[in-house]
Amino acid sequence: MTYTCFDVDIADHVAHIQLKRPEKYNSMIREFWNELPEIVNDINENAKARAIVISSTGKHFSSGMDLSVFTDPNAGVAETEVERGRQRHAFRDWVKRLQGTFNCLDDARMPTLVAIQGGCIGGAVDMTSACDMRYATEDAFFCIQEINIGMTADVGTFPRLCHLIPQGALRELSYTGRRLPAAQAKEIGLVNEVYDSHEEMLTAVMETAKEIAANSPLAVAGSKVMINYARDHSIADALDYIATWQTGMFTPADMMEAFTAKGEKRAADYDDIQPLRQKM
Amino acid sequence: MTYTCFDVDIADHVAHIQLKRPEKYNSMIREFWNELPEIVNDINENAKARAIVISSTGKHFSSGMDLSVFTDPNAGVAETEVERGRQRHAFRDWVKRLQGTFNCLDDARMPTLVAIQGGCIGGAVDMTSACDMRYATEDAFFCIQEINIGMTADVGTFPRLCHLIPQGALRELSYTGRRLPAAQAKEIGLVNEVYDSHEEMLTAVMETAKEIAANSPLAVAGSKVMINYARDHSIADALDYIATWQTGMFTPADMMEAFTAKGEKRAADYDDIQPLRQKM
Amino acid sequence: MTYTCFDVDIADHVAHIQLKRPEKYNSMIREFWNELPEIVNDINENAKARAIVISSTGKHFSSGMDLSVFTDPNAGVAETEVERGRQRHAFRDWVKRLQGTFNCLDDARMPTLVAIQGGCIGGAVDMTSACDMRYATEDAFFCIQEINIGMTADVGTFPRLCHLIPQGALRELSYTGRRLPAAQAKEIGLVNEVYDSHEEMLTAVMETAKEIAANSPLAVAGSKVMINYARDHSIADALDYIATWQTGMFTPADMMEAFTAKGEKRAADYDDIQPLRQKM
Amino acid sequence: MTYTCFDVDIADHVAHIQLKRPEKYNSMIREFWNELPEIVNDINENAKARAIVISSTGKHFSSGMDLSVFTDPNAGVAETEVERGRQRHAFRDWVKRLQGTFNCLDDARMPTLVAIQGGCIGGAVDMTSACDMRYATEDAFFCIQEINIGMTADVGTFPRLCHLIPQGALRELSYTGRRLPAAQAKEIGLVNEVYDSHEEMLTAVMETAKEIAANSPLAVAGSKVMINYARDHSIADALDYIATWQTGMFTPADMMEAFTAKGEKRAADYDDIQPLRQKM
Amino acid sequence: MTYTCFDVDIADHVAHIQLKRPEKYNSMIREFWNELPEIVNDINENAKARAIVISSTGKHFSSGMDLSVFTDPNAGVAETEVERGRQRHAFRDWVKRLQGTFNCLDDARMPTLVAIQGGCIGGAVDMTSACDMRYATEDAFFCIQEINIGMTADVGTFPRLCHLIPQGALRELSYTGRRLPAAQAKEIGLVNEVYDSHEEMLTAVMETAKEIAANSPLAVAGSKVMINYARDHSIADALDYIATWQTGMFTPADMMEAFTAKGEKRAADYDDIQPLRQKM
Amino acid sequence: MTYTCFDVDIADHVAHIQLKRPEKYNSMIREFWNELPEIVNDINENAKARAIVISSTGKHFSSGMDLSVFTDPNAGVAETEVERGRQRHAFRDWVKRLQGTFNCLDDARMPTLVAIQGGCIGGAVDMTSACDMRYATEDAFFCIQEINIGMTADVGTFPRLCHLIPQGALRELSYTGRRLPAAQAKEIGLVNEVYDSHEEMLTAVMETAKEIAANSPLAVAGSKVMINYARDHSIADALDYIATWQTGMFTPADMMEAFTAKGEKRAADYDDIQPLRQKM
Repeated sequence: MTYTCFDVDIADHVAHIQLKRPEKYNSMIREFWNELPEIVNDINENAKARAIVISSTGKHFSSGMDLSVFTDPNAGVAETEVERGRQRHAFRDWVKRLQGTFNCLDDARMPTLVAIQGGCIGGAVDMTSACDMRYATEDAFFCIQEINIGMTADVGTFPRLCHLIPQGALRELSYTGRRLPAAQAKEIGLVNEVYDSHEEMLTAVMETAKEIAANSPLAVAGSKVMINYARDHSIADALDYIATWQTGMFTPADMMEAFTAKGEKRAADYDDIQPLRQKM
Repeated sequence: MTYTCFDVDIADHVAHIQLKRPEKYNSMIREFWNELPEIVNDINENAKARAIVISSTGKHFSSGMDLSVFTDPNAGVAETEVERGRQRHAFRDWVKRLQGTFNCLDDARMPTLVAIQGGCIGGAVDMTSACDMRYATEDAFFCIQEINIGMTADVGTFPRLCHLIPQGALRELSYTGRRLPAAQAKEIGLVNEVYDSHEEMLTAVMETAKEIAANSPLAVAGSKVMINYARDHSIADALDYIATWQTGMFTPADMMEAFTAKGEKRAADYDDIQPLRQKM
Repeated sequence: MTYTCFDVDIADHVAHIQLKRPEKYNSMIREFWNELPEIVNDINENAKARAIVISSTGKHFSSGMDLSVFTDPNAGVAETEVERGRQRHAFRDWVKRLQGTFNCLDDARMPTLVAIQGGCIGGAVDMTSACDMRYATEDAFFCIQEINIGMTADVGTFPRLCHLIPQGALRELSYTGRRLPAAQAKEIGLVNEVYDSHEEMLTAVMETAKEIAANSPLAVAGSKVMINYARDHSIADALDYIATWQTGMFTPADMMEAFTAKGEKRAADYDDIQPLRQKM
Repeated sequence: MTYTCFDVDIADHVAHIQLKRPEKYNSMIREFWNELPEIVNDINENAKARAIVISSTGKHFSSGMDLSVFTDPNAGVAETEVERGRQRHAFRDWVKRLQGTFNCLDDARMPTLVAIQGGCIGGAVDMTSACDMRYATEDAFFCIQEINIGMTADVGTFPRLCHLIPQGALRELSYTGRRLPAAQAKEIGLVNEVYDSHEEMLTAVMETAKEIAANSPLAVAGSKVMINYARDHSIADALDYIATWQTGMFTPADMMEAFTAKGEKRAADYDDIQPLRQKM
Repeated sequence: MTYTCFDVDIADHVAHIQLKRPEKYNSMIREFWNELPEIVNDINENAKARAIVISSTGKHFSSGMDLSVFTDPNAGVAETEVERGRQRHAFRDWVKRLQGTFNCLDDARMPTLVAIQGGCIGGAVDMTSACDMRYATEDAFFCIQEINIGMTADVGTFPRLCHLIPQGALRELSYTGRRLPAAQAKEIGLVNEVYDSHEEMLTAVMETAKEIAANSPLAVAGSKVMINYARDHSIADALDYIATWQTGMFTPADMMEAFTAKGEKRAADYDDIQPLRQKM
Repeated sequence: MTYTCFDVDIADHVAHIQLKRPEKYNSMIREFWNELPEIVNDINENAKARAIVISSTGKHFSSGMDLSVFTDPNAGVAETEVERGRQRHAFRDWVKRLQGTFNCLDDARMPTLVAIQGGCIGGAVDMTSACDMRYATEDAFFCIQEINIGMTADVGTFPRLCHLIPQGALRELSYTGRRLPAAQAKEIGLVNEVYDSHEEMLTAVMETAKEIAANSPLAVAGSKVMINYARDHSIADALDYIATWQTGMFTPADMMEAFTAKGEKRAADYDDIQPLRQKM
């Protein structure tokens, strides 16, 4: 399949999704919002990879939402003839659909790693905060751009960053619209590592992705479900959920393979997880 | 469109979805689970109706899940060659997809009314408890059939009935697998009204659906969202949510129309809500 | 103090608040929304009574929000020159202030009993659902009137009724705007008792209020806090909260008085609870 | 084993626990609070029964907490020399331990049915509201006695009754201390059935218990876990939990046995659930 | 207006609230607890500023609660003649009123920035943790002083610090009563920046406040509401809330002004938010 | 008492629990899982200490779960003859019992400090994340070992680490199974301090424990309850809970002692908290 905004490449159980409109700063045009979930859901539902790496091209990771998207009649910018209440009801669904684009990253059964260079702006903050781990080059910076154009961020920035960085830092970034440089982003826990160059970053991130892909994809998927669940529930609820989850998912098979492989001094060879069904 | 399990008819803003396999007691075969969400989502997304009535044909509303569905490799009944943990992981998605079938009723922006005659058994309890209102003939009965075949109900019965009927009654029905006759179902609040005959019931339910369809579809949709939200949140959270919802959805247009129509002694003529978008 | 909408009378530890604009069907005019919290908060903060009875005069309990209130610039009906986003922000606060009017009933430390005759319409449903107990004459009826004028109820109806009556009944009333007669209201648990006449009702309700006022006001206040808390939390949380509450509030004094009084065949004589402070 | 307050008899997979101090109105003395969890936990942990019936002897089910319990130094009634804050800290644990006595009923993996005659007073309301189902003779009545002796109920009444009966009824009973007769208790959903005599009740309840015991004990246990979970969580959370639970617990074995037994026109013969471990 | 504990100055949309009792280490006397909410609520309700800066004078930011406050009859220190249960009930309201003092900072629609020099002790930790962002001089330190005088902090320290700093650090500070120096406070995310001198700090903080005040006050207010909401809810709930919020608050007006201003190379000129109403 | 896996020493109100199987890398054998809760619960219930220090011996803190534990018939590794659903039901209880072992650390009324050298692997991460504070030597490292043997961690790692370290770091560690060195563990807030040697660490940790033990044990216990509660609830709920807690627990006694001791230039001498009762 060919996409307007992305190149997709799957090898060694790792899917690499690359933003490919560098000349336009990888702005998020209408096609972007359709293609990303299409790609990620396809990988997820068909269990095509065990880890997903998202990277970008050009000077900046992404300048965020393309202004052309705001011309959509449901975007709430242009006035339409539809009665205002109904218009706003449709606008709510439009925002929810935008949110849904990035929910696919949270919902994917395999971890998503994102490699960020240059500007990561507006919608790109929404997007990268929905990934499991963030890595950056030293010239990278984050910017909650919405405030600079007079609006409140609404595609996932606040719900997700609240769980990723200290409140004090989040609030300053949110109210001022200032840029957060990579080095500080690492200090406050937003990015896991900072690299000197894009190439170096990509090599390291692909390495990490392969390391993940070499583990049991069922155990990795379980770990992701557990972290997502624990993030949103009390400790008592999370403990109970995990014990219940394991009754179905924990089997000796993978553990046996792990020990056998170790005994035989080879890498363990785990089965893939199963595709999800599109229909009954 | 033609469906294997359903007849669909839309008139006067009311969609009528009829189960049409009476000779098989309207058992829920594989097609059933695909067709119901397809139909309901189409009505919902394209705003094709302002109320949905579900009714059935023959002696029984529905005998529930068809046994043929259990032969699906993911159903967890037949052994497969897939590693057991992965198999159970796929089974979880299978159950979630079954659940998703009835979530479409909860998620539809228009109310769903269901008219029940004869047996409403197993999966049919899951289904009808996801509707907004239930109506029954005097020969109707409900049965949490799962316990009678040695399993725990898992497609929505417990999450939803917990909010519909007293705990004492629910627990007795759940543990014994006894039948709940229509008259008692009315007493404990599960059905809104009991009728002498199927015809009488259908006439009354269509009447109620039309009454709903004559109201502002935006106000009705808002009321449904609010009740769903209040059901799952604290009073403080629900009050706050409703005040926030109204900032977008409350406009004078419908109220003006209501008063004008009253002054002019005619029925109010409200705009439809907008379709939802399938894509950005 | 004299009020435009209410008569207030306090005797035998029972406050009686009467709606006194029968000629206008006790519609909720601007003064109403200010006076009710003023009266209830005064009783609550100064511990002036141990139970509050609200009753009304004339043919109908109340016809709900007076239309004049909608002319308020913040009501969102009339267009103003204020930028629309800011206008809607102010509208949200306006709705929250309306909600606050009835929150005072929920927050009062003493139980609130309401006696309802004739129509209990629109805002009157919001109001009475915030009371602890509802009593009605046989000609009384409830109506979620908002849907009949093209709007979604937003002052507390959905958050509170969700905890008071079965979902099936609530949804039918909400979507159709039909009237719920007193007899049915008793069947579904909304009202505690139905009486033949207003006089009979008032006598009985005052009797119940006095019965409550004869109990320890601290124990009654504790019971109300506990029910409110349990309504919004899990069983585990509610059990823990109650055990913690008792460490401060449970003392032998009232129990000793109860036993002594019983031994001496007289009514127990409990201390009042303390006033709340307006300032530090 | 012999107990001071109870007779225990297990037959046909049904445990019958009988309060046996009728001459003292089965008041809850110190031994009561230790023995009940000892008995129930033993049945639960060792999977000794598939249903538990609790009944009583004499004129009244139970008069509730025995006054002698209040003489316990931690009960907060008698003054001790311990510093007051530490005293109240210990009092909190004392209340939690009282609560724990009845939590064992909620936590038991098998349903608990309780048969109530005469007075069900104070602590007996806490106790019976922790059971799965309540049955009563026509002379039975419930009384939240705590308010009549100047205190706030704290052993489970409010957390649990909030989920069992309408708020309006609960609040009236709580604030006035009035008696709720069996017939009304059935109307508001607190008891499942009312019987003419104690003997008739016991026969019927034992019949229901045997009906439950004839079902798959794993499926019954699963249903109880699900109802308990759904009671305290949102619908979305409960659906997810159930799908996850089934990955471990749903197996074809019981379903096969159900169908085979039906084909062979005999009762199904299900395996017991496993004992819980006391230690690793 | 003149205050005993504060100087208030509003300029360029920024309110500057200064603690002005340096000779008493800005201890929190009775007037303090009344004046702070009075000042902040006035700014908030009347939309008098778009950002609030709180700073202090003298060697220490604040030594916390003044001991004189403990002599209040409701403070629970001095014995009174009031029955103990009622006394403790009043004490609970007293603590809640103390808490309310700092809730006004959380509830203000505009961000609150606090500049801290020297000691920030006891009640001052409660206070500063309720602000949006904290800034400090290098000699500043934080101390959960309550533990050093034998009590558990109860005015907001634990609820809020739990969301601001890592648990390990919080627990050590809480149990030992040790001082947390500014440099470490920055490392663990409690303060955003450390400055060499009070003057330098104040200049920088005022600069940040002005930067915030130059942004759309409606978008800033929305961002604050969203962060507060996301902090206390699941990601799914927060996404839904934000989409709903935007239906009312997002309008093209501010975005248009932002782009126009950029095109015209001038600062954007946004409308103020509306005052809140004190009465209907 | 003598234990297989631990030495226990109590002095100066500080309990020191030492893992004593260095030759086996302090692997968690069957006895471990029984002994730890036995020891901690004894200290907690009998109020034998005011702080608990856990340390280890040998090169590594602990290598985690001993493989011998997996041979337990309930461990889900070896096939048994028990019907699979019942087997998995028992497995769930087995995991819950494992979890319970570490819950005792969370539930202890006194803080738990853990001193970690060398490897802290698999189950040892579950264990140490349940402690209040973690301290480490510079050679220490943490490893979520489960993923390296093909399984999802299920004894508390995810529920608790989610509240202890940034999500990005947690996810990388969880999916890769990499080691987290002490220095980085300090940076991300997992350990409070890193020391050059085991001896130096132990000295410092015992010093901190004594500092805690010198404070009011009731105020310390209250602080721990509050932090645990705040971690799992909204800010509004936590504020309310704390105000309610104080009504019982706050008394002038400890504060008076603190001030008197300060005046007399001596250490304050606080009463112990009371033992918990094992039985009524």
